[in-house]
Parts: sequence; structure tokens; C-alpha cells
Amino acid sequence: MTTSNRLTVIHESPAYWRVLIDNPPINLWDPTMFAEMNVLMDDIENDADLKIIVFESTNEDFFVNHHDLANREVPDHPGAKPFSYWPTFVTRLAQSSVLSVAKVRGRARAQGFEFALACDIRFASRERAAFALVEVAGASVPGGGGVEWVSALAGRSRALEVVLGADDFDADTAERYGFINRSIPDSELDAFVDAFAQRIARFEKRALELGKKMVNARAGVPSEADLWTSNHVLAAVNEWPEGAAALTKLNAAGFGQVGEFELNLGQRMGNLPSA
Amino acid sequence: MTTSNRLTVIHESPAYWRVLIDNPPINLWDPTMFAEMNVLMDDIENDADLKIIVFESTNEDFFVNHHDLANREVPDHPGAKPFSYWPTFVTRLAQSSVLSVAKVRGRARAQGFEFALACDIRFASRERAAFALVEVAGASVPGGGGVEWVSALAGRSRALEVVLGADDFDADTAERYGFINRSIPDSELDAFVDAFAQRIARFEKRALELGKKMVNARAGVPSEADLWTSNHVLAAVNEWPEGAAALTKLNAAGFGQVGEFELNLGQRMGNLPSA
Amino acid sequence: MTTSNRLTVIHESPAYWRVLIDNPPINLWDPTMFAEMNVLMDDIENDADLKIIVFESTNEDFFVNHHDLANREVPDHPGAKPFSYWPTFVTRLAQSSVLSVAKVRGRARAQGFEFALACDIRFASRERAAFALVEVAGASVPGGGGVEWVSALAGRSRALEVVLGADDFDADTAERYGFINRSIPDSELDAFVDAFAQRIARFEKRALELGKKMVNARAGVPSEADLWTSNHVLAAVNEWPEGAAALTKLNAAGFGQVGEFELNLGQRMGNLPSA
Repeated sequence: MTTSNRLTVIHESPAYWRVLIDNPPINLWDPTMFAEMNVLMDDIENDADLKIIVFESTNEDFFVNHHDLANREVPDHPGAKPFSYWPTFVTRLAQSSVLSVAKVRGRARAQGFEFALACDIRFASRERAAFALVEVAGASVPGGGGVEWVSALAGRSRALEVVLGADDFDADTAERYGFINRSIPDSELDAFVDAFAQRIARFEKRALELGKKMVNARAGVPSEADLWTSNHVLAAVNEWPEGAAALTKLNAAGFGQVGEFELNLGQRMGNLPSA
Repeated sequence: MTTSNRLTVIHESPAYWRVLIDNPPINLWDPTMFAEMNVLMDDIENDADLKIIVFESTNEDFFVNHHDLANREVPDHPGAKPFSYWPTFVTRLAQSSVLSVAKVRGRARAQGFEFALACDIRFASRERAAFALVEVAGASVPGGGGVEWVSALAGRSRALEVVLGADDFDADTAERYGFINRSIPDSELDAFVDAFAQRIARFEKRALELGKKMVNARAGVPSEADLWTSNHVLAAVNEWPEGAAALTKLNAAGFGQVGEFELNLGQRMGNLPSA
Repeated sequence: MTTSNRLTVIHESPAYWRVLIDNPPINLWDPTMFAEMNVLMDDIENDADLKIIVFESTNEDFFVNHHDLANREVPDHPGAKPFSYWPTFVTRLAQSSVLSVAKVRGRARAQGFEFALACDIRFASRERAAFALVEVAGASVPGGGGVEWVSALAGRSRALEVVLGADDFDADTAERYGFINRSIPDSELDAFVDAFAQRIARFEKRALELGKKMVNARAGVPSEADLWTSNHVLAAVNEWPEGAAALTKLNAAGFGQVGEFELNLGQRMGNLPSA
């Protein structure tokens, strides 16, 4: 078991690791978490035996949450990179010979949803998972791959509903829309994902690696260039006065803080008081 | 409220318009309706405040029906254009900064289905909506985007079933096949769509516009060139003798007329008497 | 009625043929079956009246099974071709003016699933159909179009689950994932498919042919070049020592033989004894 600040890596076997994500109290994505993800990515690429990695949260309310907007400095931490390095991380994960699975229990919103989308496969709790790209409700746009992945997996019309509607989607709807693999009853989720991972871990690494390369070649991975473009778009959008005004309202209402506002973020961000 | 001949535009707010479509008795698509749609498209593009537009029918049996084949002359009416201008209209709607929603209650067939597909999002009544591209059953092919949109949203095998089978699809099947966003119980449809539209209307126009552009860039809009090609194919197909023979039988059976034949068009066009 | 060794062609009408597939005891795909398929493909292309062809199995447990690995010699049989000719066969079927339907009752695995995917449309028995690309579990990869078709129909994340997981998928899951058109209760399957075929058979051949060409142009058919690439990849993979070791274990466990192992192949191939 390897523990850092935000991530705990459990070596179930040489071929199968589980990564517990834990940034109390509401699992915000922050620069330290990203730094640790980059270190983990090096470990994944350097390991000859690893076949499958499962990401899960220790927080039953939040899988991974949006950015911690109060904490954007690149820390003095191994693996630390500016957020503009995100498209490289995503591309490494997608092209890795290791299969990555997001086991989603709790909310996955904005950057946290984009992290789940960057994993190869998503299995989600029917009762507890929720997915949202809330950016448009905050006068911004998704810049971390949300547009790319949801468009590819759910098609244009549903992607427009997700991106412009900026609301929470439960697991059953996410499954119907195609942007998660399966919605699974919460009581069965852990056993299902573990059985899937144990199965993959018994297969030959060379066959898994080639199979993933073949699917990547045919099904398409958003290009790193496209992801950079969205990333740069977001950097420009962050200068909009509409966004600063929205953020002031959001912070006053409870954004990024423990409480009911964050639990019901999709619904609440659609009903902010007028300026 | 703006009323023309076929369309009534209700300004729910500066950001949210509803358009009632009404061409009694069976909501056939005709050159006057297209002319009014072109005028509306100008209004949409020229309005700085509009964010979302919802299209719905006043006729609970028909959302928008197929072409009125007995009425194909370009009228002396503002906005009038030959039907060959259709790919331009569709492209303007898809590229508009305004989000368009088809609230489908009743049948959407042929041109009427293609109009619904040209809207960004489709929400449909579980009990009352039906969708069909009936052209092949009439010895023709869809020429207004039906092939393009259904192929993109539902994939090749389901598109072949829709286009070659030429039958009615209910809302639940349409949702499973992915060519509508959601099938919604009829009693909840109005409230659902209104809440969605009110939500969109509260967001910043600049974020909505950029979000739609980003999805369009990644998820693909059928090119105007592709739509022109299908349109021209249809013009050639309209010269086939098989089509003229089919039309004679269709007209004798009740095509384009009030009655049971139109209500059950998918089923009935699959069982026309032999020549 | 035309009977050869593996295939029986029933001419329901000049426009509608049914093909019964029968290679007892477990419907393995073998070089003789492929030879007969090639002869049938010539007949399909040379017939001016044929509009729709339905493939079904006489074996309720197996639609079409994986390759008969003990029987790989090209036989002295009309239509015989080396397996490397498979991409050409698939491309001819996809580009044919005739609509092809796989009516899937029983298991469709590996080559048998890839044959079903090569058909234009798949309707499957809810209770009796199962689909699997088991190759990765045997230290190989799918080389006959499975990666191409499942990626196109189900998207990257579900394709990765199908290809790398190498497990059985029931018809309801296959429908949700989008790689079959519909899951239909077994008691209704025959009537549903027959009604669909009779309907298609009543339409004009010219309209059906053009409609299919238009969908092919927009929805994409895997290129013959891509299929050749996968085919060649598989030829190289067949030299891997991991595959030979897996095959020894598989044969000892009951692979390709009548019995429980083949009935539960997805589950059993995920639990082979360690080397």
C-alpha cells in the first residue's frame, strides 16, 4: 500500500491496483491531487506487471468534485504541473497499456466528471452516482475533455443537453445516454467491479495491450490537440466578467463548501439569484 | 405574441420563445410553413437576447407531418424559398447561437421528422410521439437530413432499420436508438421542457453560445454539402416511375388526408395493395 | 430450397430468402462454412429480385460459434478461400444492395459474433442470445471486424469492456450497448423478423438499394483496409507463445467440444487454471 496526501494505492495483486481518492471534506480536485495523479501515472507506465487500475473515492457523497477554485497555485510537491498539463495526463491515461476504470459512487462534477471520462471505463452506483458538467451554469465552459468525451459517447443532441443544461444526471440516465458503461445497484457495485478487475488481471498483458490499441485506433480518443484547444478556450473564458460575477454569487451560496448547496449543485446552480 | 399563417411565436421571456406549429387538419409541411420558418430563422439570428426556442404543435396527433405533395409551389409569401434551400435552413439552425428544442407530441414523419432532427434537442411524449422516415415505402428516399442525422445519432444498423424499414418508431424505441434525447410521460412533458428552457434562459448567452460551438466542433453537424447531396438525390429520385406509381396508390388510400390511413401511416404504407 | 453442406437457403419469395446455418454439434465456423458463404454471396449479388436475406441457426444453443481451430485447411469445395479473404466477404455483404439480417438465437462468439456484426441488422432472442469476443481470454485479439464494428456501434468505453473483458453479453445488454438493433422475447422473435422481412420485400428494390447506399455513406462501414489490418494483426498474434499455451489449456478444458465448457465459454475462459 502506497499512501500520499490525496491518493492511496492498494496493490490487490501485481496486475491489479485500486486507488482510493480522498480529499476531505468534499473531494475537491486541487493541484496537489493533480500532482499525485502525475506521479501515479509515472508508476503506471513504469510497471511491467500492472494490467488494470480502479479509481474510487473514500467519500460516499463525492467521487471527485470540481476544482478547488480557492486553491490554484502549483504546489511544491512531486509531480506538480500547471493545470495546462492536463491534456497530456489524459492522453497518457488513454494510451496506457493499463486499463483504467472509474468506479463512481457519489457525485462526479466538472473536473471530477472529466477525470472519470478520462478513464477507459466507468461503472457507477445506480443510487449514489451523479454526473454534471456545471461550467455553463457558472458562465464558463468545460475545458478538460468533457465536451470531447460526452460528444463522442452520447452524440451531439445529448451532449448539448449535458453541456448547456449543466445539470446533474443520475447513473441510469448516464447509462442510457452512453457516457458510462453501466449503472449498477450500489449493493452490487463493489463485487461487480472487483470481479471484472480480477478477470482482466488473469489475462495476458500483451493481448490486453494490443486489444486496447486496436479499440483506440478504431473508436477514437480525443486528440491531445483538441484537448489543448478546449483547455486554452477555458483559460480565455476565465477572463470573462460574467464568470467573475457568477463566482461571487456561487461562493456566497456555498460553492466549494460543505453543505446542501454542494450536494444539490446541479439543481442549485440553475437557480442562482439574479444579479 | 407574433402570429403568421402557420406559426405562432410566444415570447415567454426575451430569452425563451415557444413556437406553435399549426397547419390544420394534419399539420402537413408545405411551402408556406417553410417560408414562415425562414422568416423566423431571420428573427432568431437577429435577436440579441434569445437563448432557447421550443417548437411544438397545436395538433396532438401530429407534431409535423410529411410534405403536402399537392401543394409544392413556392408561394408569394415573405421568406418563401424553393425547397432546395432546406439544407441552408438546417445549417443555420444547427449553427445558431440559440438552442433549439423539438417538443414532440404526435407523429413526426418524413419532412416533419427531419425538421425535428434539425433541432438541437428532441424531447418526446412517451404515449403520443411517433417517428418515421416513410420515404422508402413510397419508392423514394429521405432527402432532408434524415439519413445524415439518424446515422450519426443511432449508428449504421439502426439507421438501416429506420430508413429501409420506413416504419413508425415510438418514443421509447427512439430513446433507446438514440435519435431523441428522452421519452417522457405525456403528462410530464410540458413541465419538463418548460423547466429545461427556463433553466437555459437563466444562463449567460456567451457561455451557451460557446458551449454549443464546442459541441458542434466535436460531435459533428452534417455538412451543408452532404445535405445538398441528399437533397439533389431526392430531386432525381422524384423522377422515378416507381415513385409515381406509389403515389397514385398512396393518394387512393388516404395519403395526406384526414383519417385512419394517416394516423397509422407507418403500418399502412407497408401494406399497400400490389400494382 | 437449396441445400449444401452447412447452409440451407429457403426462398420464402423471390425477394426474401432465409439461410439456415447448421454445422453440428455446436455450429463451429469452419472453412467449409466459409466456402459456402462465398458461394451464397455470389448468388446474392447475381440475383435481380432479392431484397432481404435472414441468417438463422438450426441449433438453439449456438447461432454461429468461434472457429473450429482443429480444422483450418482450405477444403476442395466450391467457393473455398483462405480465411485472409474474410475482409472481402464482409465488405461485399455490407455493400450489397440486399439487406442482411442476423436473427440471433443462441451464442454468437468470436468469428460467429463477427459474422453477426457483418450483417446489416441484428435482432436477438432476449432469453437465448449471447455475444462474446473471447479472443483476449485466449491470449489473442479479435481479427475479423469485431473491434471495428463494436467500436463504431457501442463507442470506445463499451468496446474496451467487450474486447478486453472477453465475456458473454446477453441480448438486453447488447441492445443497451448498441451493438444489436433489438432484444426481443424469444417467443416473438420469429414473427417479428418475418414481418420485418416481408415488409422490406414489398418495397421497391431501387429505393432500398439507394437508401442503404446513403446510410453506408453517412454512417460508415469499416474500410476493407482496416479489416485487412486487423486480419493481419491476428495472423501475427497467432504466433505468440502465450496463445499456444492458452490453447493447450482451452483444449484440455473442453474448448470446441460438446459440453458445459462451450455453453458457458465467457465465464469459463475467464477462470482457466494457472499455467
